[in-house]
Amino acid sequence: MTFSPEVTYARQLDRQDTLADFRSRFMIDDPDLIYLDGNSLGRLPLATGRHLQTAVDEEWGGRLIRSWNEGWFTLPERIGGKIARLLGAQPDEVVVADSTSVNLFKLALAALQAQPHRHKIITDDLNFPSDLYILQGVCGVNGRSPTHIQIIPSPDGIHGPVDAIIEAMDNDTALVTLSHTVFKSGYRYDMAAITAAAHRAGAMVLWDLSHSAGSVPVDLNSANADLAVGCTYKYLNGGPGAPAFLYIRRDWQKKLTNPLSGWMGQRNLFDFDLDYAPEVGIRRFLTGTPPVLSLAAIEPGVDLLLEAGMDAVHTKSVRQTEYLRRLWQAVLAPQGFYLNSPRDPEQRGSHISLGHEEGWRINQALIQEMQVLPDFRQPDNIRLGIAPLYTTYEEVWTAVSRLHTITSQRLYEKYSHTRQTVT
Amino acid sequence: MTFSPEVTYARQLDRQDTLADFRSRFMIDDPDLIYLDGNSLGRLPLATGRHLQTAVDEEWGGRLIRSWNEGWFTLPERIGGKIARLLGAQPDEVVVADSTSVNLFKLALAALQAQPHRHKIITDDLNFPSDLYILQGVCGVNGRSPTHIQIIPSPDGIHGPVDAIIEAMDNDTALVTLSHTVFKSGYRYDMAAITAAAHRAGAMVLWDLSHSAGSVPVDLNSANADLAVGCTYKYLNGGPGAPAFLYIRRDWQKKLTNPLSGWMGQRNLFDFDLDYAPEVGIRRFLTGTPPVLSLAAIEPGVDLLLEAGMDAVHTKSVRQTEYLRRLWQAVLAPQGFYLNSPRDPEQRGSHISLGHEEGWRINQALIQEMQVLPDFRQPDNIRLGIAPLYTTYEEVWTAVSRLHTITSQRLYEKYSHTRQTVT
Repeated sequence: MTFSPEVTYARQLDRQDTLADFRSRFMIDDPDLIYLDGNSLGRLPLATGRHLQTAVDEEWGGRLIRSWNEGWFTLPERIGGKIARLLGAQPDEVVVADSTSVNLFKLALAALQAQPHRHKIITDDLNFPSDLYILQGVCGVNGRSPTHIQIIPSPDGIHGPVDAIIEAMDNDTALVTLSHTVFKSGYRYDMAAITAAAHRAGAMVLWDLSHSAGSVPVDLNSANADLAVGCTYKYLNGGPGAPAFLYIRRDWQKKLTNPLSGWMGQRNLFDFDLDYAPEVGIRRFLTGTPPVLSLAAIEPGVDLLLEAGMDAVHTKSVRQTEYLRRLWQAVLAPQGFYLNSPRDPEQRGSHISLGHEEGWRINQALIQEMQVLPDFRQPDNIRLGIAPLYTTYEEVWTAVSRLHTITSQRLYEKYSHTRQTVT
Repeated sequence: MTFSPEVTYARQLDRQDTLADFRSRFMIDDPDLIYLDGNSLGRLPLATGRHLQTAVDEEWGGRLIRSWNEGWFTLPERIGGKIARLLGAQPDEVVVADSTSVNLFKLALAALQAQPHRHKIITDDLNFPSDLYILQGVCGVNGRSPTHIQIIPSPDGIHGPVDAIIEAMDNDTALVTLSHTVFKSGYRYDMAAITAAAHRAGAMVLWDLSHSAGSVPVDLNSANADLAVGCTYKYLNGGPGAPAFLYIRRDWQKKLTNPLSGWMGQRNLFDFDLDYAPEVGIRRFLTGTPPVLSLAAIEPGVDLLLEAGMDAVHTKSVRQTEYLRRLWQAVLAPQGFYLNSPRDPEQRGSHISLGHEEGWRINQALIQEMQVLPDFRQPDNIRLGIAPLYTTYEEVWTAVSRLHTITSQRLYEKYSHTRQTVT
């Protein structure tokens, strides 16, 4: 394999990239670092630093308590309304609140309580574990109508068990809940097909969009999806642990009860009535006072995606993940790397997981001496995330060539097999 | 009443104040503004702006995902451990997470589930309404063992109904939960006495410390308190909506189950096991990924309180609230203001509520033309918060003199009776 023509080709792809200029809108203080973990924590938009400084100095420091009435109070639905445009939802169907896990608890429990005659939750073993833990918690408290979870196994650890999921749907099924794009393999479900099948069985569907929002086309309304949650710190570039979003289809909003019935969901909350009487719309699924600084930090990243347009973002994502897949095939497969993601971009999100028998040690070498930041997911996944707003084709090529260097020169051998906590 | 000697006296008190220098550690960009709402949103510590800029530019922007292992991951217990020192708790008994409402849901439901043979929650009508709403939500989901809430009324809307609460405690009582310092009148419960009485009845106690943390002495351990929650955005100066804290007495930690069982409470969370297996200690009451920027912003404010020392802070709080009470008696009572707070500082937090038949309109005049920011709580409370780290005696005097001007010159008459949403 001759490498120098390849970097020339990658640079040519970058020159042709209509989104290339967006990279300059992010803080990139170390141009030698290849960051392929935007699917865990998106980069910092430059506008966010300025936006936060205003929120801190002028809004908190200067306007103090008055800022609640001057904008903070409506931030959850205002930013939610913008995220809705990335998800094919109405502005009044999305709100920002809490964490993905807390929102999942609220919506899953509300869905169960709305259907006390149904006792089954269906999910799969590709779902993000926190979702499974939360579902266990939901079943633990939903004592009036004991509920159990059916975890459908993936046939290969990569693809979603679509047929088995649909087969498991029955008239005892209250809820089908899946990660739309799964966290390890990047497999992406057909939202419309799964949702339609669940509705035929009379069940509700709750999508976790954490790995989808801002990277792949999502059309909640056209799929007629009931419920969704997702985080804002991956492809939305909202900042570490930034508050999550939740979506409730409009007709469900008045039928569902928020079990975490806090004052931010109360109608006329400053009347301080002793009895809970929720707001009419999506705000009823708010709970406590939102973390304003982390909340405000979400907006500039969402604005960048709206400016770029999800069609363009997804088109580039497909081009870059396909480029990476072809490079894997040509350069890395001969080195013992295997593809832990679907081959078909229609079945994939915006990351590619590469497996290798020495995956953990290779990943360590990549980070420690190759200036490439992927992340690692047990047992053997080196996860390479493509964030189309700032990932370049040259970076994809360079990461592949460095992986090749690590294996061809056996640079990983100096690293320990012992695994540490990594995010 | 001659006013000019009074301002001289107030300035003399400020000169004698050993905490006076702490005021310069906060952003005060408008020296004419008298801010008496630090009990709703504490001022911005100057160090917080710098701290956040580091968190944004260097940790998020520069170190990116690596920052999780370089400090973010342990922030909840590290800052919790510092807050513990303000509350008379052990460092491993306090953690920062979610909102006060979400934490209350977790702890109250866990307490009920630990005592399925007891079916009653006791609280009072002085409690913060969000706490009551959350308790209603807790009862709504705790279906296995139906629970009801007994709301004990205050005899006068100011003082806690201590005797009636103790009388209501019986062998069906699972939980007694109260605001330690109540939000309207500022009444402060005797934590040790209530806790001891509840324990005699075999019940657990959960304190909401939102209006107490950082303003009054709290000694959770010596009171043998079971559980507590509280916010960090009032006297802790943690920033708007900053994440809340929760306290679980050490021996309860292994006995209680977090119903919001998310991955941040999972043991070895990066093993991504499909089954929830919680951490041994306080971290098991974490749920989702924390909002790091809002979380990090808490620390400098807590550090200021630790530096000042809670004894000194409380001593000044008592002096200032007593000063305000005496000024009310001398200057404002003749103008029709009445005291909606306890007279005895031992029964009080760090704010004083003044009532007036024209309270709402007076409050509007105070904000609109007198450069004083209190807050207003239905139906007639002008709430004046003393934050000893930055409130001066001169500000207290000036606020009182302006209230006097508003009523003596009937300046409030131009304001509407119509009430708007205010925080």
